[in-house]
Amino acid sequence: MELQEEKTIVEILKELLEARQYTMLRQTISEMNTVDIAAAMGEMEDEDSLKMFRILPKDMAADVFADLELDDQQYIIRSLSDREASNIIDNLMADDATDLLEEMPASVVKRILANASPETRADINHLLRYPEDSAGSIMTVEYVDLREDMTVNDAIERIRKKGVDSETINICYVVSRQKILVGTVALRYLLITKPDEIIGDIMNTNVISINTMTDQEEAARIFQKYGFTAMPVVDNESRMVGIITIDDVVDIMEEEATEDIEKMAAIVPSDKPYPKVGILETYRNRIPWLLFLMVSATFTGGIIAHYEAALTAFALTAYIPMLMDTGGNAGSQASVSIIRGLSLKEIEFKDLFKIVWKEIRVAFLCGFTLAVANFIRLLVFAHGVPITTSLVVCLTLFVVVLIAKLVGCFLPMLASRFGFDPAVMASPFITTIVDALSLLVFLNIATALLA
Amino acid sequence: MELQEEKTIVEILKELLEARQYTMLRQTISEMNTVDIAAAMGEMEDEDSLKMFRILPKDMAADVFADLELDDQQYIIRSLSDREASNIIDNLMADDATDLLEEMPASVVKRILANASPETRADINHLLRYPEDSAGSIMTVEYVDLREDMTVNDAIERIRKKGVDSETINICYVVSRQKILVGTVALRYLLITKPDEIIGDIMNTNVISINTMTDQEEAARIFQKYGFTAMPVVDNESRMVGIITIDDVVDIMEEEATEDIEKMAAIVPSDKPYPKVGILETYRNRIPWLLFLMVSATFTGGIIAHYEAALTAFALTAYIPMLMDTGGNAGSQASVSIIRGLSLKEIEFKDLFKIVWKEIRVAFLCGFTLAVANFIRLLVFAHGVPITTSLVVCLTLFVVVLIAKLVGCFLPMLASRFGFDPAVMASPFITTIVDALSLLVFLNIATALLA
Repeated sequence: MELQEEKTIVEILKELLEARQYTMLRQTISEMNTVDIAAAMGEMEDEDSLKMFRILPKDMAADVFADLELDDQQYIIRSLSDREASNIIDNLMADDATDLLEEMPASVVKRILANASPETRADINHLLRYPEDSAGSIMTVEYVDLREDMTVNDAIERIRKKGVDSETINICYVVSRQKILVGTVALRYLLITKPDEIIGDIMNTNVISINTMTDQEEAARIFQKYGFTAMPVVDNESRMVGIITIDDVVDIMEEEATEDIEKMAAIVPSDKPYPKVGILETYRNRIPWLLFLMVSATFTGGIIAHYEAALTAFALTAYIPMLMDTGGNAGSQASVSIIRGLSLKEIEFKDLFKIVWKEIRVAFLCGFTLAVANFIRLLVFAHGVPITTSLVVCLTLFVVVLIAKLVGCFLPMLASRFGFDPAVMASPFITTIVDALSLLVFLNIATALLA
Repeated sequence: MELQEEKTIVEILKELLEARQYTMLRQTISEMNTVDIAAAMGEMEDEDSLKMFRILPKDMAADVFADLELDDQQYIIRSLSDREASNIIDNLMADDATDLLEEMPASVVKRILANASPETRADINHLLRYPEDSAGSIMTVEYVDLREDMTVNDAIERIRKKGVDSETINICYVVSRQKILVGTVALRYLLITKPDEIIGDIMNTNVISINTMTDQEEAARIFQKYGFTAMPVVDNESRMVGIITIDDVVDIMEEEATEDIEKMAAIVPSDKPYPKVGILETYRNRIPWLLFLMVSATFTGGIIAHYEAALTAFALTAYIPMLMDTGGNAGSQASVSIIRGLSLKEIEFKDLFKIVWKEIRVAFLCGFTLAVANFIRLLVFAHGVPITTSLVVCLTLFVVVLIAKLVGCFLPMLASRFGFDPAVMASPFITTIVDALSLLVFLNIATALLA
């Protein structure tokens, strides 16, 4: 299957739908991957998408539904009868169903759950209890658990019965009679072991598990550290209650990276992709920082107003943008490196002095290069400029880079130390502080050397 | 096992090592997860780390080695005899071994490969041929392939023989006699199928595969789209040559996010974590953009110099930082949202007009809010300022936000259209352009309305 053909496939599907060639449409669909069908439906108008959904073969409907975007899912659920909706919910993985219901009005959720099977209802009610962004809220309750007193043969029998529905059975979890997680067995290991061996004797007892209340970002990090594809989730009494699978973890990692990037650009993070965020929401996510930073920048203006006479007398105003921009850029480089390092757990607060020392040396090199480059530029291209002015500008440049790098590494480290999110200490915030400091340095050096 | 105890474990290991209590050390190690042992070794001095490695039980050594950071691996390989080194390479997954050897001097690689087993040598030489960052370079050649004419019983027999060593056997790949990839069978499905069924009859023929030359970032995206945990890699003749597993994909996604973040902060990306990058390399990664942006900012200075008389006459200089900063921030917000959207494939070039229209409306709201807020601020706090000056500043603010948002969304979109990396069009670059434009707008509005 060629992945590039996707776009034409959407068009073909739309045409077949408009021409009401439902038999042909059904056949085309049945040969497609459910992910691609869901992607195609995402690009259609809501009504067309609903029509497509009704045409889907029964055995594909649940899979396609699970792959749809949240808002498409909501539209379909609202458009169906309660019984039809409950039917879909019954066929979803409990964690996916919970994600969907969490975003819907309580009255709708109540009606749908009332019509769902008692088992689904219990699973979903259970999952709805966990706080958002906790390991409990992203786990699935469909997994294969074995008992330590089973034989290998019993185990394979149980997997045959339960396995096909489970999200992953590469690893089976072994629990005691009290449901305490005591070990794991790889499915492939069961295959090469004698049928009458006891699971408790062959299991791996070195199990790493996550508590239901662990933050999902922390859970993702543990996953990545150990290279797992699934991890068991236990409650406070070490009883096994579910598993987290790597596909959820991949989504979390991407979400967290986007959140960091948005915060670094002074945007209040949203968990929706760009095209799904409306005008007003985009406005609400962007305006708080813009307002705050605008007001902060007026302090820099105050500094200029205070030194206006000196600026004019020595023709220094024209250097302000270059000094401010360079300071901002040098500071952002340091802060963004530190923020990413903190977020990937590559650096910790205890490394503070090592990091500051490193940034000082880098700042020295960068500041020196920039000052020399600028001095040469002024010498060659700016003939009217007195050499003392050039010296003041270049000395300032050097000091500004040093200050910028220090502010850029100190602020995120301090933020992390005191439990604030370091990502907020990124470019725009650093720039505003460095701007004010740069100007103060510039005007003090200038009045000292030129006056 | 409590994850938080890790730090004390490192200390315990160091103490045992210093006290030469090797029996005790060996026993402590044998109860630990290999990932944790590797992490502990990473925090030790090189010699201690090597001592630890030599003490490791034979069956754990290869796993621990695979989990070490690249530079720790290199140190150990260099410290061992060629025969010992080759032994380790033989026991690594071929893709991990290739990653390691790629970073070592050719003479060392040659010596190690000469001592390795012929099979390992062939696998590694094969993998070394693929370009860096291609799917071929990250794939593993250890997987279970079945033939379509096998029975289910033959298949399980083959998995028993080959499976335990393979990175994943959750999914088995079915190939024809010519090694062409023709289908997949889930291991769990084999378990519930009659032993005499033919694989060709029960396999799933809707296989999605990746070409060896596909970029690794593209491969990661396909993975995530379909929620796979492993994907087959085929050559140009559709012959199966390896698989990519999700643990590699998770690392790639993180690497790519870091790369984007670094580019957005005007840093030349490095693929090493912050603490591993030396002073000189950090300098080399940061100075090019600093220099380029510094020179660009002098144009803004030129604009100021040109209008210096007007700035002084109407006391406008103090507003420059606020206008420049707000423009830069508003532009970064738009550009970073667009860049992330492009990088996650949430938006494409064909959405250009939809996006521009959205940004115009958001800019209108943001610009209006900021202008009004600023007007009130000037009215309340800045008593000496003439109302016409306030009007000029606020009108400029509005126009600047509009221009900034437009530049911020246009530039990354155009970059992506013409095959440049949109991430480079982030905050610092946008800020420099918006600075110049803001000043031009400001001074033109001012001279028109105030003069």
